[in-house]
Amino acid sequence: MICRIGIYGATGYTGEELLVLAERHEGIEVVFATSERENGIRLGAVYPRLQKWASIELVTAAQAQEMEADLVFLCLPAGESARIARIRYNRHERLIDLGADFRFAKQSDYQQWYQQPHDAADLLPHAVYGLPEWNREQIRNAAIIGNPGCYPTSILLALLPFLQADWVDCNNPIIADAKSGISGAGKSPTRTTHFFESHESVAAYKPGRQHRHVGEIETQAALQASQGVQILFTPHLVPMGRGLYATVYFKLNRDADTSDLVAHLHKVYRDEPFIRVLDEGLPATRAVQHSNLCMLSAYRDQETGMAVLFSAIDNLGKGAAGQALQNFNIMLGFNETTGLLG
Amino acid sequence: MICRIGIYGATGYTGEELLVLAERHEGIEVVFATSERENGIRLGAVYPRLQKWASIELVTAAQAQEMEADLVFLCLPAGESARIARIRYNRHERLIDLGADFRFAKQSDYQQWYQQPHDAADLLPHAVYGLPEWNREQIRNAAIIGNPGCYPTSILLALLPFLQADWVDCNNPIIADAKSGISGAGKSPTRTTHFFESHESVAAYKPGRQHRHVGEIETQAALQASQGVQILFTPHLVPMGRGLYATVYFKLNRDADTSDLVAHLHKVYRDEPFIRVLDEGLPATRAVQHSNLCMLSAYRDQETGMAVLFSAIDNLGKGAAGQALQNFNIMLGFNETTGLLG
Amino acid sequence: MICRIGIYGATGYTGEELLVLAERHEGIEVVFATSERENGIRLGAVYPRLQKWASIELVTAAQAQEMEADLVFLCLPAGESARIARIRYNRHERLIDLGADFRFAKQSDYQQWYQQPHDAADLLPHAVYGLPEWNREQIRNAAIIGNPGCYPTSILLALLPFLQADWVDCNNPIIADAKSGISGAGKSPTRTTHFFESHESVAAYKPGRQHRHVGEIETQAALQASQGVQILFTPHLVPMGRGLYATVYFKLNRDADTSDLVAHLHKVYRDEPFIRVLDEGLPATRAVQHSNLCMLSAYRDQETGMAVLFSAIDNLGKGAAGQALQNFNIMLGFNETTGLLG
Amino acid sequence: MICRIGIYGATGYTGEELLVLAERHEGIEVVFATSERENGIRLGAVYPRLQKWASIELVTAAQAQEMEADLVFLCLPAGESARIARIRYNRHERLIDLGADFRFAKQSDYQQWYQQPHDAADLLPHAVYGLPEWNREQIRNAAIIGNPGCYPTSILLALLPFLQADWVDCNNPIIADAKSGISGAGKSPTRTTHFFESHESVAAYKPGRQHRHVGEIETQAALQASQGVQILFTPHLVPMGRGLYATVYFKLNRDADTSDLVAHLHKVYRDEPFIRVLDEGLPATRAVQHSNLCMLSAYRDQETGMAVLFSAIDNLGKGAAGQALQNFNIMLGFNETTGLLG
Repeated sequence: MICRIGIYGATGYTGEELLVLAERHEGIEVVFATSERENGIRLGAVYPRLQKWASIELVTAAQAQEMEADLVFLCLPAGESARIARIRYNRHERLIDLGADFRFAKQSDYQQWYQQPHDAADLLPHAVYGLPEWNREQIRNAAIIGNPGCYPTSILLALLPFLQADWVDCNNPIIADAKSGISGAGKSPTRTTHFFESHESVAAYKPGRQHRHVGEIETQAALQASQGVQILFTPHLVPMGRGLYATVYFKLNRDADTSDLVAHLHKVYRDEPFIRVLDEGLPATRAVQHSNLCMLSAYRDQETGMAVLFSAIDNLGKGAAGQALQNFNIMLGFNETTGLLG
Repeated sequence: MICRIGIYGATGYTGEELLVLAERHEGIEVVFATSERENGIRLGAVYPRLQKWASIELVTAAQAQEMEADLVFLCLPAGESARIARIRYNRHERLIDLGADFRFAKQSDYQQWYQQPHDAADLLPHAVYGLPEWNREQIRNAAIIGNPGCYPTSILLALLPFLQADWVDCNNPIIADAKSGISGAGKSPTRTTHFFESHESVAAYKPGRQHRHVGEIETQAALQASQGVQILFTPHLVPMGRGLYATVYFKLNRDADTSDLVAHLHKVYRDEPFIRVLDEGLPATRAVQHSNLCMLSAYRDQETGMAVLFSAIDNLGKGAAGQALQNFNIMLGFNETTGLLG
Repeated sequence: MICRIGIYGATGYTGEELLVLAERHEGIEVVFATSERENGIRLGAVYPRLQKWASIELVTAAQAQEMEADLVFLCLPAGESARIARIRYNRHERLIDLGADFRFAKQSDYQQWYQQPHDAADLLPHAVYGLPEWNREQIRNAAIIGNPGCYPTSILLALLPFLQADWVDCNNPIIADAKSGISGAGKSPTRTTHFFESHESVAAYKPGRQHRHVGEIETQAALQASQGVQILFTPHLVPMGRGLYATVYFKLNRDADTSDLVAHLHKVYRDEPFIRVLDEGLPATRAVQHSNLCMLSAYRDQETGMAVLFSAIDNLGKGAAGQALQNFNIMLGFNETTGLLG
Repeated sequence: MICRIGIYGATGYTGEELLVLAERHEGIEVVFATSERENGIRLGAVYPRLQKWASIELVTAAQAQEMEADLVFLCLPAGESARIARIRYNRHERLIDLGADFRFAKQSDYQQWYQQPHDAADLLPHAVYGLPEWNREQIRNAAIIGNPGCYPTSILLALLPFLQADWVDCNNPIIADAKSGISGAGKSPTRTTHFFESHESVAAYKPGRQHRHVGEIETQAALQASQGVQILFTPHLVPMGRGLYATVYFKLNRDADTSDLVAHLHKVYRDEPFIRVLDEGLPATRAVQHSNLCMLSAYRDQETGMAVLFSAIDNLGKGAAGQALQNFNIMLGFNETTGLLG
């Protein structure tokens, strides 16, 4: 089976990664790819690595409107996916949105965190949050996937097993301290992304509840928790290209030690192809770079009764394009690791 | 005035940094420098940058025993300073120990955290913890300085102002999530310090209360706090050469907002030459690299009542050799910024 | 068709890369993998990314002796492949040696450059130099492939088209100035590979004719040249993980301008799946990282009549494991890009 | 003695470096600093490291016109220094131009390489090329210093000793293959300077005679050579913040071996405080980072009779602000290493 796909926003970092992965997938045929800035240029000129799709010429989103596909991937800034989604949905084409427009079930949550109205709120009931380890069955038949953000993916995969099993004392805030590679800051050249400014530098930004991903994390956490959950989130940029590390702190509501925490992770993720729970040692982003893996471990501090969770992903892999392809495989009935091995 | 100094362990990273800084200080004359491995070699051959001290030949610690100095710096692993300290102390030479042997007032604390007896426990009453912003007066006349560790320096400078003023709810643990450059892992080539293993990688290590610096942080914190303090510490290695970033979380026991926190830091550190409290924006290690600065800011999260503190230093600067030179300046009556400008 | 392969030296950087690529290749079944140091450990514990081969337990080379395979890859230091090669050859198993033992047709050349006798000199006539763009037909039926070194691959792919067409004035030396990422220095932790020593550093090493790859380059160059060729080679280490850039200077023996040089490269490599000749701009290693590509361009300086060639590869990709898999595909009759897309 | 200085363009990377160095120099008082973009902001807000000059408020160049100084440093793009230079010159203030406007003695050379007329050509006879190791006497009394470019500094310091002594066969081109850190590309955020584009990447740019520094190198080389000199120059960007490495190839016109070459460098630079000639090993940029050093070595290849020179500097140190301060010290009669130790 060959699925004809279109990619909106093919020249950002997630679009690039998606194209690279798509080439390794024998069931994908790219039928169009859009770029507002580089339209008219062949994909092979933008990304010399591409073989199969090298001759495809980039078009604008407007030019792509009449181009049919079985499924489209949207790698667009928040707010730009909704209109395109409606057109595609009406044509019965399925969608995987790597942006933020379909990550919330409620329009009000989207508005709160993205400070703009949702242009296709009526489609939200047809969208599924694309975290396969937790929503695999709904993903299978979804019309629209809201592919999770990079920070939420790393944090939720570590945290949800303990919320679901009710091990978290939710009277205390859950603290998520995350460290992202610079590709997470996007492709636009800015002071922040200048090599000489970011190299040899670590810096936090938007602490507390300022980062938009807080809403996404809290919403998903609440679905598994028996009571309300408060997240205190501090993202940091660290000087590497790709990789994301989350260190998550919460108060245990029971007397579980480190081995209990690790055993619980093993149990929850026993059959998951992309989750690696470590029995000893702690995750490192190098080990998951250029992969769709999430590497997890846990630690319990005796004195304070606090649990510490460690989660490493590649922000462009499991944190974006890899997970999108994983969702694609589930939706289309492919083996879930197709195109994602190695 | 010229002070004749000796440096033990001159060929590790902190020793190298100290030599570079010492050259810029008009009141220092290096009279000997030790290295067990590179003894017999001229300093200029090891560090081509050195001008004034280029012709000094490295000697072993044993060879240095009879060499007199006004003050010695010890850049040695834990346990190796005590014996040398006794000899120097008996000769009325002052000491600044950049290692861990004189950071604890109580022998039992040292033994607990370093798992070895202290070979000069009788000298501990003569030692002062060399954090100038908090112990300046005692440093002035101290015989021995226990120069703080890099992690404790970054964390304590952020935290002590709030412990001292009793703003911290000590019924909850204080969480310190720290990110260190690779020079913090020392000069020995290991798997951890191999470029291809550490580059493009973030990883936590020794979480909870496993890292020896926890004892140092708790001991100093307790001196300012009205009650016991629990630290949950997670060090991480990030792919940069030098720099250290600490993100510290604690529960506020009062209704203070972000501007109150920042104002309090400003008040406490008003006249400090090496502390920079930011009114807006957050610290970044790049801005303090190759300096003796500590850059601080604070944030209060409304929903959770948690305070988040941000602290950036250069681990080899304020976290080691810079701070040692600052202590030297105080002890000898130099202007505190001598050799440490720019 | 499934080919059963064995990998000797599976835990070095080239072995790791080979395993990652092999997973993406539907025609490969790994039947054993060796490591002297990590024998007894599962591949999945060493490389968490592996899915298909995770449960394979590493064995020593001695333990692997009786294990049969259709083809073996050898990722071993120079001198260690010969003995294994004989055993495998006698069993009619094919070999791809990523080390240096089968890169020379003449035993004397090997001895000159590697300063040791060759333990299986009688096999040399059965070995083919595995540079597919130049030896594809011989590779197809070869019993043994000497997979080219990383520096020779980058330099020869740029240079051979001009030697073959007799555009090079061989009365002047050809200068190859190459820049390699640190993974090229191997996995052993050394001063050279320590992050804090190599990061923020560029340094040349073994200039002139001291590096062993000079022999390999000159031997292959001579096969295409009408007269003797002298190579002056300067390798440098630059602070990146993977990637290799060669800048090659030679005197043109004719009046060809930049466009002629580029056109010639296009003509020679017209149908090559892994060669990208740039019409404008110059290669960059980022564009070929994690791929089997070689990106080429050329420039002619009017004043001096010199040609400058630019060649970028990934030292672990086209410079090692990628090229080995390309050779494998040719030998086994797979499509040449199988497992190497994206 | 205190010299009152002004700095034009104080917020670029060379301006920043100059301010950091100036603080360490007891004979400097900064009286103004200009920035068109950040005027009105205090220097301490832009560069938290500054102590002495923290309270100085940035002004525009227009606002600075009436501000007097003993000497001004110009860190401005080519073409912007001439007009300011005339005003200052007429007021008998001395100038050190870190830009390109006073590096050529002949207006026609400037026009050829910078493609614009020179707005103060009448001042060129009053300008001296500020390479102290070769022009120290003229620098002492110069009204205007054209501070050398980073690439020319690294290349000329290696090459001039051999041109002057007539060891170079000038019938063959001299090839200079140089590798620069990203700070050399300036402070503007561009695709080239984006972390994710430049990190893990090496790329050449402007090969042959396209880079403006070729003119500067050839002009200075010709002054020492007995005949015309042709330079073939290939600059590369490598993924480090600061540092510059030049590998220079030329044909020897005599039978000199490696030790002769090294001995000659030693002889020429015997008394130079900032030149380090290595007897063994090759230079590395790490060893000169954050210094005003130039580290040199040489190699002779027997087969080809070619000499290879190796030169490492910090592009912001000896390649810009450090050298400017060295020139300042010479002009004002300070010890040449003042502010430049360590």
